[in-house]
Amino acid sequence: MKKILFSLSLMGVSLMSMAQQALFDVNNVTSPEVSADGKVTFRLYAPKAVTVDVVGDFFQKQGEQVDGRASLREGKNGIWEYTTESLNPELYSYKFRVNGADFLDPSNVYRSRDIASFTNIFIVSKEKGDKGDIYGVNKVPHGNVSKVWYDSPTLKTSRRMTVYTPAGYEKGGRYPVLYLLHGAGGDEDAWTTLGRAAQILDNLIAAGKAKPMIVVMPNGNANCDAAPGEWDKGMYKPSFMGHNASKPVASTEESFVDIVRYMDKNYRTIANKKGRAICGLSMGGGHSFGISKMYPDMFNYVGLFSAAISLNKRGFDGLNDPNQNIDPTVEAQLKTMFDKKPALYWIAIGKTDFLYKQNEDYRHYLDSKGYKYEYVETDGGHIWRNWRVYLTQFSQKIFK
Amino acid sequence: MKKILFSLSLMGVSLMSMAQQALFDVNNVTSPEVSADGKVTFRLYAPKAVTVDVVGDFFQKQGEQVDGRASLREGKNGIWEYTTESLNPELYSYKFRVNGADFLDPSNVYRSRDIASFTNIFIVSKEKGDKGDIYGVNKVPHGNVSKVWYDSPTLKTSRRMTVYTPAGYEKGGRYPVLYLLHGAGGDEDAWTTLGRAAQILDNLIAAGKAKPMIVVMPNGNANCDAAPGEWDKGMYKPSFMGHNASKPVASTEESFVDIVRYMDKNYRTIANKKGRAICGLSMGGGHSFGISKMYPDMFNYVGLFSAAISLNKRGFDGLNDPNQNIDPTVEAQLKTMFDKKPALYWIAIGKTDFLYKQNEDYRHYLDSKGYKYEYVETDGGHIWRNWRVYLTQFSQKIFK
Repeated sequence: MKKILFSLSLMGVSLMSMAQQALFDVNNVTSPEVSADGKVTFRLYAPKAVTVDVVGDFFQKQGEQVDGRASLREGKNGIWEYTTESLNPELYSYKFRVNGADFLDPSNVYRSRDIASFTNIFIVSKEKGDKGDIYGVNKVPHGNVSKVWYDSPTLKTSRRMTVYTPAGYEKGGRYPVLYLLHGAGGDEDAWTTLGRAAQILDNLIAAGKAKPMIVVMPNGNANCDAAPGEWDKGMYKPSFMGHNASKPVASTEESFVDIVRYMDKNYRTIANKKGRAICGLSMGGGHSFGISKMYPDMFNYVGLFSAAISLNKRGFDGLNDPNQNIDPTVEAQLKTMFDKKPALYWIAIGKTDFLYKQNEDYRHYLDSKGYKYEYVETDGGHIWRNWRVYLTQFSQKIFK
Repeated sequence: MKKILFSLSLMGVSLMSMAQQALFDVNNVTSPEVSADGKVTFRLYAPKAVTVDVVGDFFQKQGEQVDGRASLREGKNGIWEYTTESLNPELYSYKFRVNGADFLDPSNVYRSRDIASFTNIFIVSKEKGDKGDIYGVNKVPHGNVSKVWYDSPTLKTSRRMTVYTPAGYEKGGRYPVLYLLHGAGGDEDAWTTLGRAAQILDNLIAAGKAKPMIVVMPNGNANCDAAPGEWDKGMYKPSFMGHNASKPVASTEESFVDIVRYMDKNYRTIANKKGRAICGLSMGGGHSFGISKMYPDMFNYVGLFSAAISLNKRGFDGLNDPNQNIDPTVEAQLKTMFDKKPALYWIAIGKTDFLYKQNEDYRHYLDSKGYKYEYVETDGGHIWRNWRVYLTQFSQKIFK
């Protein structure tokens, strides 16, 4: 300790620089502080502020979609504070609202980008195996997470995806592959940040609840090569499905085979239908729906999480009356796929999801044709909290 | 467009949720806006604020260590604004200071963690080949960046490191390996975030200026398995060299051979001295100094960037008088290493670096022994701006 202090004193000459400032905890505030019983204290240094609120998804009551907020109280030295009631195990998001304008908590380095905005995150866990535990990093063998560039001949470009290889992959053997797709506005980083995919798989595999598998998380925006800032368009401001004005030369569905071929060539995959699963959330659920029927011999397991599904030609337009304008090509593709009997066709959605009706219509259509599927209905809406649960459930059902 | 708007209107039911909010640009402010001539405009929505400053390293005058700041002016609708003069090509860091408290720019999703704090970043580039261009993502083949867990028998734990494999690695062949080490308080994420190592290597390799090489960026804190939040200690608050109270069972230097063995076993490396380089900044420069002399047959290229070097037994204590208390083991190890004539022993430091004197003393010691080295002296101090330049220079000098 003496050594360190001595070194630090030497650094005094340059403490005012941003680069050196980072060495020290200049803002001596701890926030959030998560107690063992799940109460969380938020603190913010904000002298001269008129109001400071914490806005967070942990204020949501069951079935509600509106993030609540609470006011922090000003204490000594300009530090504001608020403590929640005991929260259930979960990964939560929040930010501060100072005089009506939103800012991140400067004392919390844990934060995730969801499209164009960041929120701070924290995890509440009370016992082994609860949600917070499954989303956390535990003392178990860890898989590797790689940002991989692959050539897409169909899209005529090189593109970036995230690949999780399970612990022990280096030692040899062949592994099944789960293709895990993000929603509109997301990108190849989404499932490993707010989605906690690597932690969920690490923990389930270590507990023997999921089979060791490779997980491929591509970029589902065919007009983008990669996440914002990670390709040659510079550090642009992300926006909803508008990262790039140019129209792609092919769709995500049409170009998906490029990804599967790359994986089968460059990784030790089980390169057949039994070794492949596909699932996704929202737009990625729509992609999973589309890709699985377009390639009926490719995937044995299909998961639609809060999926944007359309049976007619108008795409993601929300009009999904199965008795009207059903695209005959879609109908024929679905028939071919279901005739080949996939091992699992899994549909999950929350009761208050704005895509609930689309999914209900689709289930009625599947019922009318006698196509087999499994259905899970949860509370809540179109939110990551549900998608993490769906991945946890789906990943335990595949490759078995 | 019509389709999208229709879909969006359907989402109206749930727009108030944080999860859906992320789909939209709720804060309709663009910041920063970098013009072609290098002027940068900052904007912040902060109604009721008394003062809003931007604090940034671009205000530093040559040789200074103190980040300057400028005041934003309040305009309409609570939006504050400030425009800089034309800035030189560089990657810059900044944050806002509202009523004296620091916050990130909520409109800028580009930000890098440096130990315990985040800063926003942006890049100014004016022409091909300038610093901004080399630190940016260009239309060139990209290497893959992986977070890799390896077993360290010496430290008796599993640890995380970052591995860059150059574009084309998948196609076969053997590659040399650069071991690139971070500073005190940093971790295995440092060189790929503020260090821009992947971009620097991508661009230099594509231009034919650097050889295609693997770059290994380990975690140099022997008492940590991984970066904050990435191992089983949870989402703790990072602090300078104090991530974990427990004392490691061995030092970074002693355990380094575990990393080299892992790489030679699991990657197609050139597994001999000619195929290995090691360099690092600050503490990582000290590690490079220590490891290269500890394993005199391992590295043909050694780079010390603003290195924390000590020739006596007291470690990083800043007392480095070469005429006093020189550790005979260190002296013998240095002799052995230099007698084996490494192809390059490269020392770089800024004129105002607080470690300047240590490095000057070390150079005098090397001179007194007739040991060959190359020396580069730059403006500025102990800052990432220098370390990016040193990596750019060093990586062009190795494996040739």
